[in-house]
Amino acid sequence: MAAPLEPRTGLPVVAMVGGGQLSRMTHQAAIALGQSLRVLATDPAESAALVTADVRLGDHRNLADLKQLAAGATVVTFDHEHVPTEHLQALVDAGHRVAPGPGALVHAQDKLVLRRALAAAGEPQPAWTEAASSADVAAFAAEHGWPVVLKTPRGGYDGKGVFVVDDEVQAAELIAAHGTLLAEERVVMVRELAAQVARSPFGQVAVWPVVETVQRDGVCNEVFAPAPGLAEELATAAQELAVRIADRLGVVGMLAVELFQTDTGIVVNELAMRPHNSGHWTIEGARTSQFEQHLRAVLDYPLGSTAMTAPVVVMANVLGGAAAEPDWAGPPLDERVHHLMAHWPDVKLHWYGKGQRRSRKLGHVTALGDDLAEVRARAVAAARYLADGVVDEAFAFAGEHRGARA
Amino acid sequence: MAAPLEPRTGLPVVAMVGGGQLSRMTHQAAIALGQSLRVLATDPAESAALVTADVRLGDHRNLADLKQLAAGATVVTFDHEHVPTEHLQALVDAGHRVAPGPGALVHAQDKLVLRRALAAAGEPQPAWTEAASSADVAAFAAEHGWPVVLKTPRGGYDGKGVFVVDDEVQAAELIAAHGTLLAEERVVMVRELAAQVARSPFGQVAVWPVVETVQRDGVCNEVFAPAPGLAEELATAAQELAVRIADRLGVVGMLAVELFQTDTGIVVNELAMRPHNSGHWTIEGARTSQFEQHLRAVLDYPLGSTAMTAPVVVMANVLGGAAAEPDWAGPPLDERVHHLMAHWPDVKLHWYGKGQRRSRKLGHVTALGDDLAEVRARAVAAARYLADGVVDEAFAFAGEHRGARA
Repeated sequence: MAAPLEPRTGLPVVAMVGGGQLSRMTHQAAIALGQSLRVLATDPAESAALVTADVRLGDHRNLADLKQLAAGATVVTFDHEHVPTEHLQALVDAGHRVAPGPGALVHAQDKLVLRRALAAAGEPQPAWTEAASSADVAAFAAEHGWPVVLKTPRGGYDGKGVFVVDDEVQAAELIAAHGTLLAEERVVMVRELAAQVARSPFGQVAVWPVVETVQRDGVCNEVFAPAPGLAEELATAAQELAVRIADRLGVVGMLAVELFQTDTGIVVNELAMRPHNSGHWTIEGARTSQFEQHLRAVLDYPLGSTAMTAPVVVMANVLGGAAAEPDWAGPPLDERVHHLMAHWPDVKLHWYGKGQRRSRKLGHVTALGDDLAEVRARAVAAARYLADGVVDEAFAFAGEHRGARA
Repeated sequence: MAAPLEPRTGLPVVAMVGGGQLSRMTHQAAIALGQSLRVLATDPAESAALVTADVRLGDHRNLADLKQLAAGATVVTFDHEHVPTEHLQALVDAGHRVAPGPGALVHAQDKLVLRRALAAAGEPQPAWTEAASSADVAAFAAEHGWPVVLKTPRGGYDGKGVFVVDDEVQAAELIAAHGTLLAEERVVMVRELAAQVARSPFGQVAVWPVVETVQRDGVCNEVFAPAPGLAEELATAAQELAVRIADRLGVVGMLAVELFQTDTGIVVNELAMRPHNSGHWTIEGARTSQFEQHLRAVLDYPLGSTAMTAPVVVMANVLGGAAAEPDWAGPPLDERVHHLMAHWPDVKLHWYGKGQRRSRKLGHVTALGDDLAEVRARAVAAARYLADGVVDEAFAFAGEHRGARA
């Protein structure tokens, strides 16, 4: 069945499940390619729904809504991993293109499935087991020590569904509440890295430089591209690992491989099969952004150059802070944006248009330059100013960067 | 009267008159700033209407439509110069912010008004006169020689409304058809340049490097940034000229000053007070694009850095060619896009989603690098391939570049 094109433009229609900021930024990339992203949103005030022309309101757990979304679209893709696998399979069975396909996506949806697949492939990962009882956790701890990290296999993101337990009683409570969990050793890590790769159905792959990600409370907070001080052989190993996983799992679209760097190498933490927070820096920092590349990949277009546009790129998230509180009496958002532009004329803002709530991902900023300390200071200070309405120089750059000394 | 903000986001709403590619690309910039451009389009299939959430269908010559557009918007701006001055004044009188204001915009609408203003300011321009009769043209030619360039004061763009006449008979015919015309000497020029500046109501200005523009049949075809081989004092003079004009006319938003470079210096050809084809290169080629800068300026936000992101940037327009003809039997657009990406993985595509017609501006491509000849070859070959479906190496780079040898 030939994939449908938009009749007025003669170009593809990519339908994306989810109306968050990833869809919003994918739409920006789609516009340049002559397209307009079709978005399945649950609310007309969602980030992407505010800026796209073709919004379908519906529920990603409802097959009828998904079928309506897919009708006339060239390909269906996702800004999150929460569509039930059986619905994806139903779309495929009905002749729709779905990218990534259900057989690949399940590895980003279910952490136990991922662990099994990586084990079968012999890829490096933390010690793990499937824990159906607290006795399973205790047996695992007898070998790997407490604390143990317990994760719900499905549904977790941004640190949700991840628990660090110190004993069998805590483990028993969690298993009673959630059912079978993934148990992992707590990895003693140097830092977190991410390797991003795009893969097309044709099998073409494109990798960006490996980045360092800094999490705060389980949420991505800063990204440094390239990962400072990362030995070239380790960077190459991480890129090759990402390509092997994308190939083996048959990923179509973007794949972000979240990694722990340890004293002895790298291990895989988890996967995302979509544009990912660790790749926002590519909008200004690489010749082709992860959003454009995701569109190219799911459409089986040839992939774009991933060359960096500056030696150092830093992305800092704006997480809802003091200024998101109901009793905030400081400058309102529009004024803070004004001040940000005055202070940092070369910091690039991406604001998602979402309602402001404490800890919510509201936007991000990107800075480019030659010197990590200077670029990081700019990005973090700008992000912090938007979040909290204060310029906190101490926060802006707290001492030397660990990785840079390595 | 406080300017309205969008109630859900707390951020401004910029309303743009016109649904063409300039609105389309301004919307991309608006998305990053947390906004969504409101667009007045005449047809739902217009370039910007295809990709924006807030489309108002209406006529820019109809005051009621303009008032509906302005209601609740923070500021009204334009992607063309064709709104009647009296309607703009009516919006201002009703308390709406209009940027640029009618008093400034008239200089981009009416070439006679511009010539008088530049004369009063003592700025360099071609010899000119107001020609109400063929005798006026003959008298002008007696001083400056034939041929004479006759221009309709209003309504011309992309070479339309510009006539080169060799004698009084031709002049008489044109004046009979069009009424009073602007008569100008035919300038013997080395090349065409453009200087772009943004100006905010606060009076802040920001200039980009002066570019060379290459026209074909009166339509912008290629832009080289920076203008190759341009002497620094001439580049500075062109930037200062643009700033003086923006200040003197009270421009708010983007101003493009189109210039002729002659053996003895520069003269002003005409003005555009909006994002302009000569500034499309800034999307990838400068830290802040003309589209983002236009939004910043009309909102009185501080302006962004205009630093270039690469030593050489070339923009090439895709004008409807052989592939836009009804009998085209070559690869359809989607395939041509596919091939473009395969051939030129680092050329950036901007396709406007418009119906394909011969000579119509359908899109543009941008290439970046270090060497003008190489960068130009890539950009022009890619644009030509989209337009005509053939890779024409001879066209791609025909000999050495004139400016680069200067």
